[in-house]
Amino acid sequence: MKFDPKSYYTKQIKNFEKKYQPILKNKTPKSLYEPCDYIVESTGKRLRPFLVLVSAQAVGGKASSVMNAAMAVELFHNFTLVHDDIMDNADKRRNRTTLHIKYDLSTAILAGDNLLAIAYKSLLKDCKKHGTSPVEDFTHGLIEVCEGQSLDKDFETRKQVTLNEYIEMIGKKTAALAEISCSIGAKLGGGNPKEIKALRSYGNYLGLAFQIQDDLLDIMADETELGKKIGGDLLEGKKTYLLLKALEKAKGKDKELIQKVITNSGIRKNQINTYKKLYIKLGVIDDASKEVKRYTTLALKALSILKDEKSKLTLEWLANSLTDRKK
Amino acid sequence: MKFDPKSYYTKQIKNFEKKYQPILKNKTPKSLYEPCDYIVESTGKRLRPFLVLVSAQAVGGKASSVMNAAMAVELFHNFTLVHDDIMDNADKRRNRTTLHIKYDLSTAILAGDNLLAIAYKSLLKDCKKHGTSPVEDFTHGLIEVCEGQSLDKDFETRKQVTLNEYIEMIGKKTAALAEISCSIGAKLGGGNPKEIKALRSYGNYLGLAFQIQDDLLDIMADETELGKKIGGDLLEGKKTYLLLKALEKAKGKDKELIQKVITNSGIRKNQINTYKKLYIKLGVIDDASKEVKRYTTLALKALSILKDEKSKLTLEWLANSLTDRKK
Repeated sequence: MKFDPKSYYTKQIKNFEKKYQPILKNKTPKSLYEPCDYIVESTGKRLRPFLVLVSAQAVGGKASSVMNAAMAVELFHNFTLVHDDIMDNADKRRNRTTLHIKYDLSTAILAGDNLLAIAYKSLLKDCKKHGTSPVEDFTHGLIEVCEGQSLDKDFETRKQVTLNEYIEMIGKKTAALAEISCSIGAKLGGGNPKEIKALRSYGNYLGLAFQIQDDLLDIMADETELGKKIGGDLLEGKKTYLLLKALEKAKGKDKELIQKVITNSGIRKNQINTYKKLYIKLGVIDDASKEVKRYTTLALKALSILKDEKSKLTLEWLANSLTDRKK
Repeated sequence: MKFDPKSYYTKQIKNFEKKYQPILKNKTPKSLYEPCDYIVESTGKRLRPFLVLVSAQAVGGKASSVMNAAMAVELFHNFTLVHDDIMDNADKRRNRTTLHIKYDLSTAILAGDNLLAIAYKSLLKDCKKHGTSPVEDFTHGLIEVCEGQSLDKDFETRKQVTLNEYIEMIGKKTAALAEISCSIGAKLGGGNPKEIKALRSYGNYLGLAFQIQDDLLDIMADETELGKKIGGDLLEGKKTYLLLKALEKAKGKDKELIQKVITNSGIRKNQINTYKKLYIKLGVIDDASKEVKRYTTLALKALSILKDEKSKLTLEWLANSLTDRKK
């Protein structure tokens, strides 16, 4: 029978959820663990834990021996969401009320802190025989994410941001966690330095492709499939890949229109279609798609030195399905 | 020449500051590191790093080899202060504007997160030859502190809190960090399990004594020496050792008066002296002093198995000077 990466993913995530869902149930104090558990209960693609599991297998390790590390990166990811949602004044996340709205600010700050603490605790369980190196990666990722979030907040008020600065920002805010998910999996799976480097590189490129694809979907997706209104980034005046690329390319009247998004900190709802057409006319939709393809290709190339065929197929499938995703 | 623990402390803290003060200078993004550095610049007793340094020496290690771990516990401590100040709506800390007031909420949350991240990074530098055990202690301490802070917030709105619950709370919120400062120092210093256990125990008792002494000073200190108005805990209706003990002991009219502090969520400024007298009358000032002495004695007893005389003298001096402190 032919190996099917998609059903393999489904199976692995099912195993993951079985371990992950109960971790914070019935813990006290309730005032701390109920909000934390509310976050654990929220669904998601579980991309980052999947990267840990597959990276371990890609170097000859067992998925079951890195399950705690996989939970750690998911907890880490959720810690960032809880604190980011406070900073962004977001009241919804994946159709659920955000923590600081459901409870209050203090509870959300503290629950975020505790999710991070539990993440470290979980990671350490799988590190007994491996020394501190995976924890160093984890901590490096944490610093990157803090720096990335800080840059992202800076960009909101800065008049000028270059595309290079944007790539640096998403490299830290988004790609770093994918990168360390791979390197931690590879290290705990017993990978050699070359394998670890390859998987780390795969994670980084995957993360960059993922984020630019996110920017693309915000304007090009089908609203029903996306599950939310398109054009949200434009409404907020967010300096995405598309906006910055458009600013670089546009001339005359077009440039004025693009510049207005920044000057006015966003556009009106009835302008979304005008800007979508302008993006298409300027070719920045194509540019972004090409950039997603370029990073995806780099991610796939990094896999070439790996020997485990099933893991390789899985990571290839993952990269391609993220690029082709509609939501 | 006789060994003088106080000048030894002064010397060690001077060394510590030399390493600690520059760690976040000139780092980018500035939007993240300037607020973090503002926190590093703030002064303090540096008790927790001192515990790391002395604990390492107490088991035959060198203070210089645990300097990064010492910085880690101070960064950890400051991370908790930044987030706690947000939760407590505090606008001043040690006579300086708190971070969320000086900058804004988002900056303070993120700076707190980053201080914790840098703390882990710093700790890991000293762990290369020691495996993950010190990082496990650190993470255990972090979870305890989150749980302790959550309990403390709970107590604010709960009508009834027992003295046992109060001790559990300060054990987590205050004593846990002192405890892990000692155990991390002892582990990195190469201590044997008995020594590690002894120092861990010392840290725990010291932390408990320290917190009850804090409660005492809030009402009994000389305002000039304390550097702030006395009675702050009563004004806020905080469930301190004194208030809970008074509630346990008081009868009739006295009990009603004590109960009012809780029902009205605090008292008025002009009532502070009345309550101070009531505390004295009920004997809870004596009770708290005895409790501080009891925990201090337990801390000192734990030291008996240690061999390094200078470290022992230093830790004894530290415990006694914290008990005798006026601020």
